[in-house]
Amino acid sequence: MAKPPILTPRAEDFPRWYQDVLNKAQLAESGPVRGTMVIRPYAYAIWERMVAEVDRRIKDAGAQNAYFPLFIPESYLQREAEHVEGFSPELAVVTVAGGKELDEPVVVRPTSETVIGEYMAKWIQSYRDLPLLLNQWANVVRWELRPRTFLRTTEFLWQEGHCAHASEADAHDYAARILLDVYRDFMVEVLAMPVLIGVKIPEERFAGATNTLACEAMMGDGKALQMGTSHELGQNFARAFDISYQDEAGERQLCWTTSWGVSTRMMGGLIMAHGDDRGLRVPPRLAAVQAVVVVVKDDDGSATEAARRLCDELRAAGVRVQLDDQVATAFGRRATDWELKGVPVRIEVGPRDLVEGMATVVRRDTGDKQPMPLAEIAAALPVTLEDIQRELHDGALAERDRRTVDCSTLDEVVEAASNGFARVPWATLDAPALELLGRDALTVRCVQTTEGGLPDTLDAAGNVAIVARAY
Amino acid sequence: MAKPPILTPRAEDFPRWYQDVLNKAQLAESGPVRGTMVIRPYAYAIWERMVAEVDRRIKDAGAQNAYFPLFIPESYLQREAEHVEGFSPELAVVTVAGGKELDEPVVVRPTSETVIGEYMAKWIQSYRDLPLLLNQWANVVRWELRPRTFLRTTEFLWQEGHCAHASEADAHDYAARILLDVYRDFMVEVLAMPVLIGVKIPEERFAGATNTLACEAMMGDGKALQMGTSHELGQNFARAFDISYQDEAGERQLCWTTSWGVSTRMMGGLIMAHGDDRGLRVPPRLAAVQAVVVVVKDDDGSATEAARRLCDELRAAGVRVQLDDQVATAFGRRATDWELKGVPVRIEVGPRDLVEGMATVVRRDTGDKQPMPLAEIAAALPVTLEDIQRELHDGALAERDRRTVDCSTLDEVVEAASNGFARVPWATLDAPALELLGRDALTVRCVQTTEGGLPDTLDAAGNVAIVARAY
Repeated sequence: MAKPPILTPRAEDFPRWYQDVLNKAQLAESGPVRGTMVIRPYAYAIWERMVAEVDRRIKDAGAQNAYFPLFIPESYLQREAEHVEGFSPELAVVTVAGGKELDEPVVVRPTSETVIGEYMAKWIQSYRDLPLLLNQWANVVRWELRPRTFLRTTEFLWQEGHCAHASEADAHDYAARILLDVYRDFMVEVLAMPVLIGVKIPEERFAGATNTLACEAMMGDGKALQMGTSHELGQNFARAFDISYQDEAGERQLCWTTSWGVSTRMMGGLIMAHGDDRGLRVPPRLAAVQAVVVVVKDDDGSATEAARRLCDELRAAGVRVQLDDQVATAFGRRATDWELKGVPVRIEVGPRDLVEGMATVVRRDTGDKQPMPLAEIAAALPVTLEDIQRELHDGALAERDRRTVDCSTLDEVVEAASNGFARVPWATLDAPALELLGRDALTVRCVQTTEGGLPDTLDAAGNVAIVARAY
Repeated sequence: MAKPPILTPRAEDFPRWYQDVLNKAQLAESGPVRGTMVIRPYAYAIWERMVAEVDRRIKDAGAQNAYFPLFIPESYLQREAEHVEGFSPELAVVTVAGGKELDEPVVVRPTSETVIGEYMAKWIQSYRDLPLLLNQWANVVRWELRPRTFLRTTEFLWQEGHCAHASEADAHDYAARILLDVYRDFMVEVLAMPVLIGVKIPEERFAGATNTLACEAMMGDGKALQMGTSHELGQNFARAFDISYQDEAGERQLCWTTSWGVSTRMMGGLIMAHGDDRGLRVPPRLAAVQAVVVVVKDDDGSATEAARRLCDELRAAGVRVQLDDQVATAFGRRATDWELKGVPVRIEVGPRDLVEGMATVVRRDTGDKQPMPLAEIAAALPVTLEDIQRELHDGALAERDRRTVDCSTLDEVVEAASNGFARVPWATLDAPALELLGRDALTVRCVQTTEGGLPDTLDAAGNVAIVARAY
C-alpha cells in the first residue's frame, strides 16, 4: 500500500498545501497577536540571503541605508490626503505609553513616506543635495483582517526606499531603474522567478502615488502575486512636507519623490512558485543550504568521517553545505525532511557505497539520483547547482507561458484568467469591463508594452493588460 | 586669531561635545516622537558593520537567527512577576487597531523573553531538541523619560539571543561563552574598546534574571557604559511558559534559559570612548570607510584621475575606500568633515604633489601627516590601518588604567569614582556602603575576580567590585 502523502497535493487544495509546507518544513507559524507571524530559523536564513542580494543591488543603484523611527505622530499621516485615506483602516495606534495616556496618539509605521519626508525637507537645501537616495530595512504594521502567513501579515519585514529628485524625469528614471536593476534582476537571477513588469492601473496604485511600477509573478495555482513595487509620488509628498531645493538659478523648487519596496511576501512567492508535492524547492543561488551531505548509517564512524571530508571539500569549492550525521533518526525520515525544506542537492553517504568510493547525488528539482565517485563531487556540484537554477527558472517560465492566453474578447479573458494569465489590449478594457472582471475577482495585474516592457504612459498605443486572480 | 573650535571641547562640556559630534558628523537626530532617533547613513553604515561582526560570532557560537513578532499580548508579560514589574513603567501599548478598540491591549516588545518562551515551549519535546539557541535582530521599545541619542532611546535596534538548556551548568556556560566569545571578543578586537567583564549585583540585574554578566567600558569622561549583557534566567521563564523536555530517562524536566543582547547603544559607546575634540575616531576594523582619497583641487582632471586609480588599487588591497572628488567645495571644509566623521586615514591628492608622484597620508588617530609615493600607498595602508587599530585600543586601555584606582576605604572609592573607576574588595561593600555610594550616583558596575575574570559566584572570596558613575 502506498504511504499517504506528507503534504496535501497541490492539485487537491492549493491553500492547504501551502499551509502544510509552512508547517512541515518548519518555515513559519502564526504569532499570538492576530495576523502576526513567527519566522523560524530555516526560513529566516533564506530571508537573510534575500536581504543580502537585494541590499547589494540597492547599494549598486546608489542608495544609502538609514533608519527612521517605528512611531509616527498621527498628524504626519494626515498631511497627504490620499495616503491617510488609504492607510487609516489598517493602522495600529499606541495611545498609552510610560504608564500614561499620550496627548497625541502615535501610529506604528505602515510605511515611512511621511516621517522620512519630514527629514528630507530638513536635509535638502540645494540642487547639490539631489538626488537623495535613502533606503531602510524595517518592520511595518498594517492590521490585516484576512491574514495569510508571508503573503498578508499584520507585521512584515521589508525594505523601503525613499528618494527625492530634482525633476519628474529623474524620478521616473530612478523608479524604473529600481524596478529593473534591483527587483527584476534579483527575482529572475536569484529567485529564478520569471516576473512580468508593468505599470498599475489607477485603482491599484499605492495611496499617494502618481505611477506604480510592479513585478508580478505566477504562482503554482495560476494566480498572480505582486512581488515588488516602485512608485513615482509626483510632488504630492514634497508639497505636504515642503521637500524643496534651490536650483542653479537660485529659485526654490519642489522635489519629485519616489518610494519602492519588497517584503517577506517574497517568501510566500518563492514557496508558491517553486514548491511541488514533496515540499519547497529553493533555487541554488538563493539557498542558505545548497547541498546537504547525509550520512545514511554508520557502524564504525567511517561514513561520518567521509561525509565530513566531503563537506570540507564542498565548502572549499564555494558550496554552502550542511552535514546531517543524525544517524539516530531513520534515514528515510531525514531524506523526506530535506526534500520538504527544498535543499537543491542531497548527497547520501552510506557504508555500502563507500566501499567503492561512491556516494549518491540526488537533485531536488527532478528527483534524479546519480551514483558518483566521492572524489569528483566537489568539482561537479557547482555545475549541477547552476543547472538546477536554470531549470527552475525555465520550468516556471514554461508553466507561465502554458497558462498565459492572448485574448481579444472579455469572455476569453474571464476564461483564461480563471486559472492563469490573460493578455488583452489595454484599450479594450473600459470601466464597465473592469467592473465585470471584478465580479469574478479578476484584476489587471499590470499594463505593459506589447514586448513586455515598461510603458512610458498607461494609455500608450499597443499597451497590453495582464488580467488574473491575485493573492 | 585662532578659529573657534568646531566642537565644544570635551573638557569643557562632555555632554555638549557628544551632541555636537552627533550633529556635525551627521550621525543621528531626534525623531518626532519623544525619545526616538533617526540614524543617518554614515552612522547606519557603521551599525551595519557592527551587526555583521557580531552576527558572525553569534553564528560561530551555534545560535540561529529567527524572527518573532513586535506585538506581544499584555497577558504574556504578566506571567513572570519580576519581569512585568521591571518593564511595566516603560511599555508602549496599542489599544486601537484596524479602526477598532482591541479586546486585549497589545504591548510593543520591550524585549522578547515572553513571546519566544511561548514558542520554545511548543518546539522543545525531548533532550534531543536541546540546547535550542535562537537569536533575533530587531527593534524594541522602552518608553524613556530622559532619552539620550544612542544611549537611552525609546526605540532602539539590537540583537536578543534566547536559549533553552537542559541543565543549570549548560545555561551558565553558554551565558559566559556569549559574553566572552561574542561580546568581549567583538568589543576588544573590532571596537578597540578594552571592556571589563564581571557579574552584576542583584539590584542591577535584568528583570527576571538570576545572574547577569556584563561588559563595561570607560568613556572619555571617566564614566562607565554598560556595553552588553548576558543573563542566566534560571527556571523563572521556563516555569512561567512551561518550557520543558523529556530527559533520557523519560522524565519531564524544566529547562534553564538564558538571554543576551547588545544594541545601538554601542554606537554611543564608540563615540564616547574614541572621540576627541576634532570628532569621531572609528577603529579601522569597524570602519565602513577605512580610507578616503581626497582630491585637493584639480585643474586638468589629472588629480581626479590619479585619485580614482589609487582607489582601485586600495580596493584591490582589501581596503574599504571612498573617493572625495567634490572640488567645488573648499578642501579645508572637506578635510574637517572627514575628521569629524573619524575616517581612519585621509589621503590627499593634489596637483603639486602629483608632479612628483606623491600624495599625503594623514592618520586620524594621531594627526600625523606623511608624504608618500603614490605607488607605495596601497601596499602600506593595510599595515597602517592595523597600527591605528592597535593604537586606539592601547590608548583607551592606558587611559582606563590611569583613571582606575585600587581602593580600600569608602572615602577613597568616592574620590576615585568621581571621575574614573574604583576597584574595591566586594566583601567591604555592605548595604549601607552601597546606599552611601548611591547618594553620589555611584554604582557597582560589575564584580569580577582579582584577575579581572568572571567569578563563578558573586560572593566568592577575593572578588573585586568596579565602582563608577554610569550612563
